[in-house]
Amino acid sequence: MAARSERRSFWTWGYVSDEPSDDERNASAARLSARFGRDVNPPPIPDLDDVSLRPARIDVPARLAGFVTTDHAERATHTYGGHSMELLKALRGVFDNPPDAVAHPRTEDELEAVLAWCDAGGYTAIPYGGATSVVWGVNVPEASDAAVSIDLDHLSDVLEIDEVSRAGRFQAGILGPDLEAALRPMGLTLRHFPQSFPWSTVGGWVATRSGGHYATNHTHIDDFVESTRMLSPAGWMETRRLPGSGAGPSPDRLVIGSEGTLGIISECWLRLQKRPTFRATAGIAFPNWQAGTEAVRAVVQAKLWPANLRILDPVEAGASAGLDGTSALLIIGFESADVPQGANIRQAVALARDHGGRVADEDILIDDGGGKATGRGGAVGAWRNAFIGVNAGATNGLGLLSDTFETAITWDRWPEFDAGVRDRMTRVLADVLGEGAALSCRFTHVYPDGPAPYYSWNGPAALGGEAEQWQAIKDEATAAVVDAGGTVTHHHAVGRMHRPGWDRQRPDLFAEVLKAAKGRLDPNGILNPGVLIDA
Amino acid sequence: MAARSERRSFWTWGYVSDEPSDDERNASAARLSARFGRDVNPPPIPDLDDVSLRPARIDVPARLAGFVTTDHAERATHTYGGHSMELLKALRGVFDNPPDAVAHPRTEDELEAVLAWCDAGGYTAIPYGGATSVVWGVNVPEASDAAVSIDLDHLSDVLEIDEVSRAGRFQAGILGPDLEAALRPMGLTLRHFPQSFPWSTVGGWVATRSGGHYATNHTHIDDFVESTRMLSPAGWMETRRLPGSGAGPSPDRLVIGSEGTLGIISECWLRLQKRPTFRATAGIAFPNWQAGTEAVRAVVQAKLWPANLRILDPVEAGASAGLDGTSALLIIGFESADVPQGANIRQAVALARDHGGRVADEDILIDDGGGKATGRGGAVGAWRNAFIGVNAGATNGLGLLSDTFETAITWDRWPEFDAGVRDRMTRVLADVLGEGAALSCRFTHVYPDGPAPYYSWNGPAALGGEAEQWQAIKDEATAAVVDAGGTVTHHHAVGRMHRPGWDRQRPDLFAEVLKAAKGRLDPNGILNPGVLIDA
Repeated sequence: MAARSERRSFWTWGYVSDEPSDDERNASAARLSARFGRDVNPPPIPDLDDVSLRPARIDVPARLAGFVTTDHAERATHTYGGHSMELLKALRGVFDNPPDAVAHPRTEDELEAVLAWCDAGGYTAIPYGGATSVVWGVNVPEASDAAVSIDLDHLSDVLEIDEVSRAGRFQAGILGPDLEAALRPMGLTLRHFPQSFPWSTVGGWVATRSGGHYATNHTHIDDFVESTRMLSPAGWMETRRLPGSGAGPSPDRLVIGSEGTLGIISECWLRLQKRPTFRATAGIAFPNWQAGTEAVRAVVQAKLWPANLRILDPVEAGASAGLDGTSALLIIGFESADVPQGANIRQAVALARDHGGRVADEDILIDDGGGKATGRGGAVGAWRNAFIGVNAGATNGLGLLSDTFETAITWDRWPEFDAGVRDRMTRVLADVLGEGAALSCRFTHVYPDGPAPYYSWNGPAALGGEAEQWQAIKDEATAAVVDAGGTVTHHHAVGRMHRPGWDRQRPDLFAEVLKAAKGRLDPNGILNPGVLIDA
Repeated sequence: MAARSERRSFWTWGYVSDEPSDDERNASAARLSARFGRDVNPPPIPDLDDVSLRPARIDVPARLAGFVTTDHAERATHTYGGHSMELLKALRGVFDNPPDAVAHPRTEDELEAVLAWCDAGGYTAIPYGGATSVVWGVNVPEASDAAVSIDLDHLSDVLEIDEVSRAGRFQAGILGPDLEAALRPMGLTLRHFPQSFPWSTVGGWVATRSGGHYATNHTHIDDFVESTRMLSPAGWMETRRLPGSGAGPSPDRLVIGSEGTLGIISECWLRLQKRPTFRATAGIAFPNWQAGTEAVRAVVQAKLWPANLRILDPVEAGASAGLDGTSALLIIGFESADVPQGANIRQAVALARDHGGRVADEDILIDDGGGKATGRGGAVGAWRNAFIGVNAGATNGLGLLSDTFETAITWDRWPEFDAGVRDRMTRVLADVLGEGAALSCRFTHVYPDGPAPYYSWNGPAALGGEAEQWQAIKDEATAAVVDAGGTVTHHHAVGRMHRPGWDRQRPDLFAEVLKAAKGRLDPNGILNPGVLIDA
């Protein structure tokens, strides 16, 4: 397939076309100056040609020169993933640990060739999809003597669509919008919309156990994977395409979440949906967070399986959806290609009202077959727009330190978990950032046995000291989550960032098992070392 | 916990109390004599005390003598799982490869002690739950020099119930009915009812990826596992209790389906349900099998997620549910603890009628909250009773060779798959058994991307030559399924029986990975060798 039409921005999350204008950056600076009572101005954007890179430490052999390069701009733009601390470094022109070469294999033969080259030379090989990793999953490890970023952007074809079984075979490098565009004429959709959707790839979703559109039932990409094909230095591992199986431990479940440490996913069969035409949506206000989360539990345990079941705490409901700052907002959405959803939304609303939820009957929006979206107006629409526009980069370099962390926890521990996390975070934010920090929470996904809370925080950073401040806050967030029994990540992946938490959370023997598996698949330890396990 | 109140039958699938009476055996003999035109009589049931066993090849040290025994009856009753060829050998008094000792650890300390003893001595260790394996999962390998069967019957407590999250912590040896009895007072249920339910255990279900009650959506025990605790020679591996996670490959998914080769599961947290009170059921007749299976596809792809969505082919619908022998029968059942199911069953019936299904409106049974079962009358009830009474042992030794094989396949390949399997099976049955053999199919579970077909066959065996005949037929069944793209097992597990098919189906490198994992967890290769992989 042709190269991507859009070029990735090196200092914002997204494409060059997503970069904010000078006016937008100035407006952000004015807003933050007012909020924090200090003058900040947008820093200049460096010219990529002028940034200094360490000379490439490897030579590309002639036989690979058609798709492997040591080009300056290529190496610079493959230095970082999408985390704010990375984008800040990039904005400041700091590219101190770039890959030594970047590969763009156009065929599986070329993929084999570049991986074999890395393996023979002992070069670190970093699988690279959309580079939207917010957990330091695509960086060159400090200890690496030489590293090659293997960008799958050319392995991005739709290979087969099986309309009968509703499944499709995709190359790993295909981007979300390209996949959906290919399915639309058939009335099909994958309906997996992580926040990174416009810029991230099928291979990245599978490698990182990406969380998607569905807030309940089938939440992770895991549930949509029918089979996988992965190249490791030891060879290809391709699983059989099956709707279900009970034959031994699932090989796909080893590939899913392997984060580039066991092999490079080259293609997958994914389960598809018919495009929904029946929809129903309601935004329900609760007098407080606790009542709202109890309502969520009631709805999810009734197993109505809404596509959307997301609650915003009073801070988020106030900021994103215009509520009063004390009320929580629960957004419930059902969708189906075949079945009217009026009965389901009314059942869910009844359960929510039993728990103190308030919504007028006329604000329960039902579309019985027209295919019209029902969640674009009112508080629900306001929240949707805030979600989509997030992370656009307008505040980069303006001293606003912000991040999110996400987890999952069983319901029995949830109230105490939330109180503990908020307490520890409030303290560390005050300690590190002083006055003016903010903390909020929503649920992105919900299970009958527990929610997946997503915390956001921000506050005024010391300009130039952001990285140290961020690390202190992150360490506390990780400790707060893991100490209280949560997972260090529900859908952002482990990468290098979450290693301290994951090392505490996963059984020690499981790390040993992963090392043994890696020893067989990647005996020289070239694949993404430092992610998940030490080489 | 106390020992089980019921003793396992050594020649039928179930307890001694499930054994058929002499009258039942004589009636079976008369029926089969008539069917096959030859006189057969029930063989005598041997006295277990009289059967000859190879002397135990190991001595039990005094410190283990409180729970490890070389008792004759114990060794004999732990020789076999539940497959018909095993029960036939037992009925004929053939116990040529018994375990040398049987352990009944009463605590995790005793479990550790017996496993350490096996590891130090190089004795094969065979985890033993309810011994309902129909795939030779609990046998002593021929090559073993000494083997210990580790029966978890005393590790069978309910350890915790979390009513808020709806989850429970169970020891691995608990039986299905005991688990449900403990949950009933709280209004909870696991609702996992494999056909082995009365006699099988939580640990066995998890180790073998057991398929349960739900025909759609969450079909395998896999989906109900919240965490696991497993002992291997290298130590304990306990996972964190989480409703969902995206942190690395799932450790539980390595334990699930490991079939006793990586460790002995000692306990699990499982997700529970509220007991259903709303129910709706319909039995829908189709003019032929093809039309019926297309209707199943329409219903499952509409994602209504019925608890029951099982179709019987005309042979099974005739034999088990009294239909005319040309019509297929589709049984659709919905259930919920919270939500009336009338709308769902009407939607599903409408889709079925669109595909030629026939059911009178008054035969759509709906119970809106009374908790009464709706599937106990008419054709649906007749099928249910036939299903529950299966395998009771009354035909053992009477020259009726019968078995089942089950798989899963994507919808696009299903019609050709079914035709091919039927063709190959019809031929091999005629070749091996001559006239009078029967073959039929139903779906036990269904996915949006494909069904899980379950084939049954039977016919007149040569008395005394059953094992060879069975093997010839089984080899062809396995080849037919695997050649055509199916899985060698959807929920019966791999064991030693399905190794040839599994070895073809799973990626070679995945077998290498499993061996590497086993090398770390079980370096001396004592755990259930020959299952899944070679030691």
